[in-house]
Amino acid sequence: MPGTPMLDASAAGVYVIAPTPFHDDGRVDEASTDRMTDFFMEAGCTGITALGMMGEAPKLEHAEALAIATRIIRRASIPVVVGVSAPGFAAMRALARPAMDAGAAGVMIAPPSSLRTDDQIVGYYAGAIEAIGADIPVVIQDYPLAIGVVMTPGVIRRIVQANPSCVMLKHEDWPGLEKISQLRGFQADGSMRPISILCGNGGLFLDFEMERGADGAMTGYAFPDMLADVVRLSREGRRDAAHDLFDAHLPLIRYEQQPNIGLAVRKYVLKRRGILASDAQRKPGGSLSAAARAEVDYLLTRVARGDARAGKLAA
Amino acid sequence: MPGTPMLDASAAGVYVIAPTPFHDDGRVDEASTDRMTDFFMEAGCTGITALGMMGEAPKLEHAEALAIATRIIRRASIPVVVGVSAPGFAAMRALARPAMDAGAAGVMIAPPSSLRTDDQIVGYYAGAIEAIGADIPVVIQDYPLAIGVVMTPGVIRRIVQANPSCVMLKHEDWPGLEKISQLRGFQADGSMRPISILCGNGGLFLDFEMERGADGAMTGYAFPDMLADVVRLSREGRRDAAHDLFDAHLPLIRYEQQPNIGLAVRKYVLKRRGILASDAQRKPGGSLSAAARAEVDYLLTRVARGDARAGKLAA
Amino acid sequence: MPGTPMLDASAAGVYVIAPTPFHDDGRVDEASTDRMTDFFMEAGCTGITALGMMGEAPKLEHAEALAIATRIIRRASIPVVVGVSAPGFAAMRALARPAMDAGAAGVMIAPPSSLRTDDQIVGYYAGAIEAIGADIPVVIQDYPLAIGVVMTPGVIRRIVQANPSCVMLKHEDWPGLEKISQLRGFQADGSMRPISILCGNGGLFLDFEMERGADGAMTGYAFPDMLADVVRLSREGRRDAAHDLFDAHLPLIRYEQQPNIGLAVRKYVLKRRGILASDAQRKPGGSLSAAARAEVDYLLTRVARGDARAGKLAA
Amino acid sequence: MPGTPMLDASAAGVYVIAPTPFHDDGRVDEASTDRMTDFFMEAGCTGITALGMMGEAPKLEHAEALAIATRIIRRASIPVVVGVSAPGFAAMRALARPAMDAGAAGVMIAPPSSLRTDDQIVGYYAGAIEAIGADIPVVIQDYPLAIGVVMTPGVIRRIVQANPSCVMLKHEDWPGLEKISQLRGFQADGSMRPISILCGNGGLFLDFEMERGADGAMTGYAFPDMLADVVRLSREGRRDAAHDLFDAHLPLIRYEQQPNIGLAVRKYVLKRRGILASDAQRKPGGSLSAAARAEVDYLLTRVARGDARAGKLAA
Repeated sequence: MPGTPMLDASAAGVYVIAPTPFHDDGRVDEASTDRMTDFFMEAGCTGITALGMMGEAPKLEHAEALAIATRIIRRASIPVVVGVSAPGFAAMRALARPAMDAGAAGVMIAPPSSLRTDDQIVGYYAGAIEAIGADIPVVIQDYPLAIGVVMTPGVIRRIVQANPSCVMLKHEDWPGLEKISQLRGFQADGSMRPISILCGNGGLFLDFEMERGADGAMTGYAFPDMLADVVRLSREGRRDAAHDLFDAHLPLIRYEQQPNIGLAVRKYVLKRRGILASDAQRKPGGSLSAAARAEVDYLLTRVARGDARAGKLAA
Repeated sequence: MPGTPMLDASAAGVYVIAPTPFHDDGRVDEASTDRMTDFFMEAGCTGITALGMMGEAPKLEHAEALAIATRIIRRASIPVVVGVSAPGFAAMRALARPAMDAGAAGVMIAPPSSLRTDDQIVGYYAGAIEAIGADIPVVIQDYPLAIGVVMTPGVIRRIVQANPSCVMLKHEDWPGLEKISQLRGFQADGSMRPISILCGNGGLFLDFEMERGADGAMTGYAFPDMLADVVRLSREGRRDAAHDLFDAHLPLIRYEQQPNIGLAVRKYVLKRRGILASDAQRKPGGSLSAAARAEVDYLLTRVARGDARAGKLAA
Repeated sequence: MPGTPMLDASAAGVYVIAPTPFHDDGRVDEASTDRMTDFFMEAGCTGITALGMMGEAPKLEHAEALAIATRIIRRASIPVVVGVSAPGFAAMRALARPAMDAGAAGVMIAPPSSLRTDDQIVGYYAGAIEAIGADIPVVIQDYPLAIGVVMTPGVIRRIVQANPSCVMLKHEDWPGLEKISQLRGFQADGSMRPISILCGNGGLFLDFEMERGADGAMTGYAFPDMLADVVRLSREGRRDAAHDLFDAHLPLIRYEQQPNIGLAVRKYVLKRRGILASDAQRKPGGSLSAAARAEVDYLLTRVARGDARAGKLAA
Repeated sequence: MPGTPMLDASAAGVYVIAPTPFHDDGRVDEASTDRMTDFFMEAGCTGITALGMMGEAPKLEHAEALAIATRIIRRASIPVVVGVSAPGFAAMRALARPAMDAGAAGVMIAPPSSLRTDDQIVGYYAGAIEAIGADIPVVIQDYPLAIGVVMTPGVIRRIVQANPSCVMLKHEDWPGLEKISQLRGFQADGSMRPISILCGNGGLFLDFEMERGADGAMTGYAFPDMLADVVRLSREGRRDAAHDLFDAHLPLIRYEQQPNIGLAVRKYVLKRRGILASDAQRKPGGSLSAAARAEVDYLLTRVARGDARAGKLAA
């Protein structure tokens, strides 16, 4: 909601990546969007990220994108980050400014896949922040597996030090555990100011990411309630309990993390959980074969042995 | 203008890629846009392509892009093709439909760089055409050097045969001479219906592309009047004359074809020709160093020895 | 050993990818190579693949590579496949022919990352097989995540149908479950002759790959004995038992599957299992930080709860 | 010959990239190799580069590669640089050391296409030089168009400053004129020690590269005698004369610079010049269609109007 504070480096917990709910015919499903927003808050999420890659943002028209982000912002009582990555700075600004006006807590920016050198990456963030305005809190999205742009810890430090509005890293490098340790080391030696680090990659390494110093997760796994529990258990120092819960879900996390069909799995499970009315994606979108759906159903029965929340689905 | 006929496979000559004129502060320059449109018609161009990659299309907001295309369409008495490549089909349709309503002759679509297999490319064009509507004439943009997607002649044939609205290929493969021969061979053996083939790559191979069967050029070299003459001479069978004129410009064509700074060269020359008021690009954009500007100036004096049109600039 | 039969489409089980054992100073460790070969046979592997990507093959000189492959072939009583991927066909042949003379059961060939179109891929395998000789059984390595070359099921069918010597697919697409189903569908409808499908990707999806019709695994996870058990349980139709065993290892499989450091994890575990004397890699190679080693140690204690073989390491 | 001095930063002129002459059946053609070596010296070349990418080096077995390099070294009385780029450091050393023992003046190393960050590139050269030995003069090959690795001027400076054995840059960035100016600026401000800069890209920008401060060319255009003249004229300050000669060849330079078929054009012209007995390439290699050969023939007649050396071919 508009009263939510701006994003800063103290952000922690689970910022869930929100998928965009569609009807079977491709129209945006507003009722499911509201139900989903409520569910995320009940699940213990501390924030929501709208219009991420997994949110099918590139498939939306500008007006649709802004409407969805605004709807989530208005309903949520937790901070909402809006993905504003765009082929050009004009379109980026055209989404970022009204999203902030609507009450967003900050924006997330991924580098375009054409960048190669360290200087190009640093320069890109400088240009983007100049374009949207230095008053908007920024999340750096570091996702080399999908984007092909590799940011060293040193490059991230350069971006952070040059741009006070950069307050968070969506950490999605792979492998990435050492990167967390290195960035926290930069903070410890005083060469970089503190930032929030929330981890993506579908949660596949959340168990150890927390132990390396992450503040939480920013990902869209269909059980954000579980992610929230793992973050909490890990912060409480209950290592075995955190891993036990995490490992119970790992077979499904692993299955959901497959490129291209991951979102289909996620929407299918959210539909089975009663949150989305349809698991449809806009074209071009992946869909699950009957065999794949049966595999997910089987995985859910197995997850249920370690987490009762999955068990309800069997009913 | 809205009265212009729809694009079809008989299109030939020079469809010049229009840059987007900006003021030094980044605002769109409407007076230069009009002057440029008039110049293109006087230069003998048979069509104009707006919002191509070289038109800085990704740097425009949706409303700006549509306004520029519409302005050119209304002023021109020759067909205008509008580039509508977009990260998603919704945005593509959102530009294509109103552009056609404003009087465009057709749209141009490049594949996204993520495509790899033959089937993915063919499927992408099927999806794009379903999204924008099969009533809109489509130009396939085949530009592997910039995009990284390689379409074999066989894939182009599959797209053409499956989609009656595909009437033109913007041929920009490199090397590409054999590709023209192969596509014309498909037409000759009856396995592909005729399409228009206009060539890009800054015109660097236009001399031989015409001899291989191209219908003309679709590129933005700052002397489209020369391109029009080369196309005419070649079609008249005046081979040596076509090459003589072409070769006089080749040192500059070569210089302008450099990635990243090519557009800066082009705008600089158009400014020197009195067509653009400013050679500014929107950020992030290349600019010419003093050394580079001096090199272009020197090249213009040399081009003038073989083409009086370049000579006027020396004044 | 030289008496081992040639590879054919009936191959099944676990063909373990053998790392290349080095001393700490980078010399090949022959004693560890022998111990490792013996261990693989005791672990229930049905074959060994030498000189795979994970075997640090590109870091070896030609003579070294041939010596290592030959040493493994001579000691093993199970078939040995030799990776012969090379920048050129001459080098490929120069490894393939003497490896077969030494008793290899077949060779594995990955496409170079420069290939893009379907025809280029098909043509590459035709050229490679012409170069090495059509009498050598060939394994197609399909690993788009690492190589960037995407082969559709249709392209694999074209390669298989055109080249009788292609008898096996090392399946490593991601996602890849539907690909197995499609290829088995091709066999069922008679459009492709049967081939052996062994799966890679570190074993991360072996549980479901078996259910989709794979014949087994070709990967280097540090517990090939577990992989062999999962393959056996799955073929016996003991689904839950297969998943139970697999899931007990999944946290470590997941950890080992990280790019760049995966081999370091693998060698570290094989060293802890008493098989390798050193976990050193030749330069440039990844190494594990103290934090990472401690994470692997912790994972081993957790795996031990479901598989006693891991438990021995705690001693 | 073994008596040739080692490569150092004073190298200048034309280091011609030598193709590898083959017989039509794919065997190395030693007589043509000798004739070619003699021709290069007569043409005014100041050095020869063997086993470059254009030399089909990846298609050669190790022993063949070394034999060809050695043959050229023994016959030439000018320095010979040997390309030793390899997938691994062991193979790189295995070629570099015996090539130097045979009398090479230095080696050329290109980065592997997998490198992304500045640190990875710098680290790669450190590792390569450690592997081959710091006593061997090294040429850095900077060819992003073909390799995909982008080195900023700052990265090149880091490599040069960290490795005294790096004495030359094969400059092949595109666009690259500003890069030359920046590197010479580094020398002027004392932040980088002097290096030799020889330019590639088929010579397409040699006219201006010389004016920006290059020391010459390292490329394989089929008229290295012309390249040598352009370098000489430019160093003498005869600007117009240099451009006049260059421009006379530009239509053919442009034609030869097409990827994939460029080498076929080059070998065809060298065959027509009587230097190579065959223009065959080893598989997989490009070949010229009848139409392409006719185009080259036509270009040669046109080049002959400005350079009598091309005229002899018409006879």
